[in-house]
Amino acid sequence: MQLSLYDTTLRDGAQTEGISFSAEDKLRIAERLDAYGVHYIEGGFPGSNPKDREFFTRAAERSWKHARITAFGATRYKGIRAEADDNLQSLAACETPTVTIVAKFSRFQAENVLETTPDENLAMIRDSVAFLKDAGREVIVDAEHYFDGLNHDRAYVEQCVRAAADADWLVLCDTNGGSLPSGIRDGVLAAAAGTELPLGIHTHDDLDLAEANALAGVESGARQVQGTANGLGERCGNANLLTLIPTLQLKLGHDCVAPAQLQQTAALARYIAEIANVTLDPQTPFAGHSAFAHKAGYHGSGMRKHSDAYQHIDPLLVGNDSRILISELAGRSSVVARADALGLGSDTDAAQVVDELKALEERGFQFEGAEASFELLLRRLSGDYEPPFAFVDFLVLAETRGGRDMLSEAMVKIRVGEEIFHTAAEGNGPVSALDRAARKALERFFPELGDMQLADYKVRILNSSAATDAAVRVLIQSSDGDGEWGTVGSSANIIEASWLALKDSYEYALLRARGSQSTVAKPT
Amino acid sequence: MQLSLYDTTLRDGAQTEGISFSAEDKLRIAERLDAYGVHYIEGGFPGSNPKDREFFTRAAERSWKHARITAFGATRYKGIRAEADDNLQSLAACETPTVTIVAKFSRFQAENVLETTPDENLAMIRDSVAFLKDAGREVIVDAEHYFDGLNHDRAYVEQCVRAAADADWLVLCDTNGGSLPSGIRDGVLAAAAGTELPLGIHTHDDLDLAEANALAGVESGARQVQGTANGLGERCGNANLLTLIPTLQLKLGHDCVAPAQLQQTAALARYIAEIANVTLDPQTPFAGHSAFAHKAGYHGSGMRKHSDAYQHIDPLLVGNDSRILISELAGRSSVVARADALGLGSDTDAAQVVDELKALEERGFQFEGAEASFELLLRRLSGDYEPPFAFVDFLVLAETRGGRDMLSEAMVKIRVGEEIFHTAAEGNGPVSALDRAARKALERFFPELGDMQLADYKVRILNSSAATDAAVRVLIQSSDGDGEWGTVGSSANIIEASWLALKDSYEYALLRARGSQSTVAKPT
Repeated sequence: MQLSLYDTTLRDGAQTEGISFSAEDKLRIAERLDAYGVHYIEGGFPGSNPKDREFFTRAAERSWKHARITAFGATRYKGIRAEADDNLQSLAACETPTVTIVAKFSRFQAENVLETTPDENLAMIRDSVAFLKDAGREVIVDAEHYFDGLNHDRAYVEQCVRAAADADWLVLCDTNGGSLPSGIRDGVLAAAAGTELPLGIHTHDDLDLAEANALAGVESGARQVQGTANGLGERCGNANLLTLIPTLQLKLGHDCVAPAQLQQTAALARYIAEIANVTLDPQTPFAGHSAFAHKAGYHGSGMRKHSDAYQHIDPLLVGNDSRILISELAGRSSVVARADALGLGSDTDAAQVVDELKALEERGFQFEGAEASFELLLRRLSGDYEPPFAFVDFLVLAETRGGRDMLSEAMVKIRVGEEIFHTAAEGNGPVSALDRAARKALERFFPELGDMQLADYKVRILNSSAATDAAVRVLIQSSDGDGEWGTVGSSANIIEASWLALKDSYEYALLRARGSQSTVAKPT
Repeated sequence: MQLSLYDTTLRDGAQTEGISFSAEDKLRIAERLDAYGVHYIEGGFPGSNPKDREFFTRAAERSWKHARITAFGATRYKGIRAEADDNLQSLAACETPTVTIVAKFSRFQAENVLETTPDENLAMIRDSVAFLKDAGREVIVDAEHYFDGLNHDRAYVEQCVRAAADADWLVLCDTNGGSLPSGIRDGVLAAAAGTELPLGIHTHDDLDLAEANALAGVESGARQVQGTANGLGERCGNANLLTLIPTLQLKLGHDCVAPAQLQQTAALARYIAEIANVTLDPQTPFAGHSAFAHKAGYHGSGMRKHSDAYQHIDPLLVGNDSRILISELAGRSSVVARADALGLGSDTDAAQVVDELKALEERGFQFEGAEASFELLLRRLSGDYEPPFAFVDFLVLAETRGGRDMLSEAMVKIRVGEEIFHTAAEGNGPVSALDRAARKALERFFPELGDMQLADYKVRILNSSAATDAAVRVLIQSSDGDGEWGTVGSSANIIEASWLALKDSYEYALLRARGSQSTVAKPT
C-alpha cells in the first residue's frame, strides 16, 4: 500500500533542545526531503516568528517534485470567531496547499490546559476546519493527546473525532509519548470506527517506542506516518522517519520511496545532522556510521564467511556500508581512482597516501567535504609539486583594554621564490584578521586571488568533553565565481586549524587560476 | 510478576564501536548495577582476554547484593569433546555462579558460519550444557539467531530448543536486530510450546525496535529481559535496560526494582556514560537531559498550567527533572516562572528581560543550554546585584615563527574590590590559554574555583556563509563535582564569544560556592 509520508523536521524537529534552523537551513532541508520523496513537509508556524514566514514566502517561489509544503498552527482561540483569529489568518495568508492544525482531543487537556469548556473546544475544532476549508486548503487535523484522551474520557474523544469530520486527514497523536503499541492499536481502531477520514499516526519517543508505535498504527489502518529526520523533536524526539521508511519498505513491503531514493537514506540523515550542527548518533539504525560495523571477533569472522551472518539487510539498500566488507574512505582503491582522475596515477604511491590519510584522520581531518585539500595532499605526495608560496611566520592577537571593544590583528610574513613580504591587518575576529593579512601579502604576488572569496566557514569541536583543549576541525568552502572548493584543517588550536584550511584554500585558488586544477570545483 | 533483569553492558555493551572498558571500569559499573537491583551482570568473555579474567578474579572477591556475576562464552568447538575445549574450561575456571553460552539456533548459521553439520551443532549445544551443569553452574543458553532461524528452518530450531533442555534458562536472541514485534511474539510462543525452560528475550536495535521487541517478548511469556545500560552494543546497540525497567515497572506493573532504586535511573545512566566516555544522548528516554525539557511556547505554557500537560510520568520517579527551555519559541511567561523560581519575582521587570533576551538572541545568544547565563542575566537586571569580579583587560595571541609549533598565550588583568591583579598563561590554543590565565587570576581571590572544571565546549558558526566574519556562538558546560551548569557567549570574534561564556561560568561557580545559586545546577 502507498503510505503518505509526512515530515515535521522543520517544526516538531525544530523543537529539539539546542536546535535552531535559519530560514535558509529550512529551505535546504526541504529540498532534500522533497528529492527523497516525502509527501508533506511541515515548514513551521507562520504565526509565531518572522523566520518561519520567510521560509513560507521563499518556499512558495519554488516548485516541489513530490512534497506539499504545509503550514502548522492551532485551532482558533477560545471565545472568538475563526475569522478574528490571528493565527488562523496567518495560516491562510501563507498560501501553502495544505494546513495542519493541532487540536486538543482530550477533555482533561481542554479543561485544564486550554481552560475552556468541552463544548467550546469542540466548536474550536469545527470552526477552524471550516475556516481553512473555506479558504481552499487541504486540512490535516493533528489530534493532540488523542491516546491520553481515550484513557480519560473516551466518549469525549469520539465527539472530537466527529467535530473534525470536514477535514481531509485526522492524525492521531501520542503527544506525551507514553503509549504502548497495544494502546495505539486500540486507539486507531476506535478512530476508524468513528470517522470516514483517512487516519495518520504521530508518535513520540519517550519510551523508545516511537517507531514501534508508528508501525502499530500502520498495522491498524493508519495511512499517513508523521515523523522527523533522525528522530529530532521535543523531549526525547519524534519517530525517526528515516528509520521508519526503510522498515516499512524493506520489512513490511509498503511502497514508500523509489529504491534509488532509499539508497539516499544515510546521506540524507547525515546531511540534516550537519545542517542541524549535531553529530548523527553512530548507532542510528540504517544511517549511522556504526549501523553495519562489526566489532566482536566472532561477528567479524562470521561476516567474512557470509555477509548475512550479522546483518539484517544489505546496507547498500540504504546507502550505508558494512565496515568489514568495504574499505573506508581512506581505502586504497578510492585513492587510486582519484589520482587517475587527476592524471597523477603514475606518480602516486597509493599505500603512502593511505598511510598519510589515516594519520591525518587520526588527528581529526576529514576529507569528505574537502576535496581540494585531498587533491593538494595527492599533489604534495606525488613528487615534483612546487608550492607557489610559503608562510614564514604569523601572529594573531585579540585584546580588549579598559572595557573598549575587542580588537583583532594579524601579522604575516610570506616568501614567494626569493622574495619576502611582511604585512598586517585587522579583522572582526582573529581568523578574519589572519585571512585579511594573508591575502594582503598574497595578492601582492598573485593579483588573481582578488577573485577568490570564502563562501562558508564551519567549526566542529571533535571531543567537546576535552573542553577548551578539544581538537577542532575547520571546513572552509571557497569560491572564485566559476566554482567552489572545500578545504579542511584540524588542530587543538582553533587558529591553527583555521589557518591550515585557509592556506589550502589560497593554494587551490592559484592552481585553479593557472588552469592546472582538476575536476573538483563545481560551478557556483 | 517479578522479571529477571539481565545486564550485558560489560559484554555486549563493550562491543560498541569506540568503547573500551578497563577491568576497573567494569567493576565500578557492576557495583552500580548491583545496587540498582539487576539480577545478572554479564562481565565478559573470560576466554578472550586478560582484562576480562582480571574482572572475574576481582569480582569473585566481593559480595554482591542483588546480582549474580555471569561469565560469557560459546558452545564447544566443532569436532572435539567439551572437556577438551579451552573456552569451556576457562568459563568453568572463573567460578561465577552462572555461565551464559551462546549457541547457534539456525541451520543456515551452523552450516555457513560455523561450517559444521546440523547434527554436530546440536551435539555442541547438548555437550556444552552438560559440561557446565556437571561443573555445578547455573547455565543460561543464548539462542543466537533464534528468530532468523525460525524463518529459515523451523523444525531445526525446535531440535535446538530440545538440545538445550538441561540448561536453566533459554534466552531467545534477535541477533541481527531485524525482527518485528509480531515475529518476536510468534517465536516466544513457539519456544514455550517446545520446552519447559523459563525463557528470556535478547534484542538489538537495528530497526529502533529493541525495546518494543523486548516488551513483545515479555508480553508473550518471556521471564528474563536482557539489555545494556544506555543501549550500548554491536552496530545499533542492544535494548536499553534503563528504558525497559521504568517502562515495565511504571507502565506495565511488573515488579523490577525498588522505587528508591528506580529514582537512581537517570544518575545511573549518566554515570555509565561517563565511565564509557560518551555523551549520554540528551534525548534518551527517562534519563536524558532533554527527556523532560519543554521548548515550544505552547508546551511551556501548558506545563505551567498542569504538570501532566506534556509529560507521561513525573520525572522524579526516575530521578530526572522537568525544564522549561528559554528560547525564541518561548516568551514572557517562561521568564516570570524562572524569576519566581529564583526568588527574584518581585525584582524582575519581565518586559525588560524579554526585550534584553530578544536583543541578545538577535546577536546569536541562545539560552536553552545556558540556564546559568540566563540566571546571571536576571540577577544583573534585578537591581542590587554586585558582580564578584571585573576583568579590566585581556590579550590573547597565537603565533608561529620560522616553522616552529604554534604558541598560544594570554594575559589578563582582573579587579576584585579595589585590588588589581595582572597575570599570564600559555595554552594549547588561544581559548585554553585565556581560561588558564583567567583562573590563575581568579583563584588568587577565590580558591573555591579550584573545584570547577569545564566539562564541555561547543562552538557553532551561526551564519557560515559570512565566512570568517560570521557570528559564533560558544556554549560551555561546567561542573564542580556537585552539579553542572551551562553558559553562552556570542560574537563575530570567537575569542570574545568564548570569553563571555567563560566569564559567566566563573561567576556562576562563585554563586554556587556561596550557596546563593538557584535550582539550575543538577547533581552530576
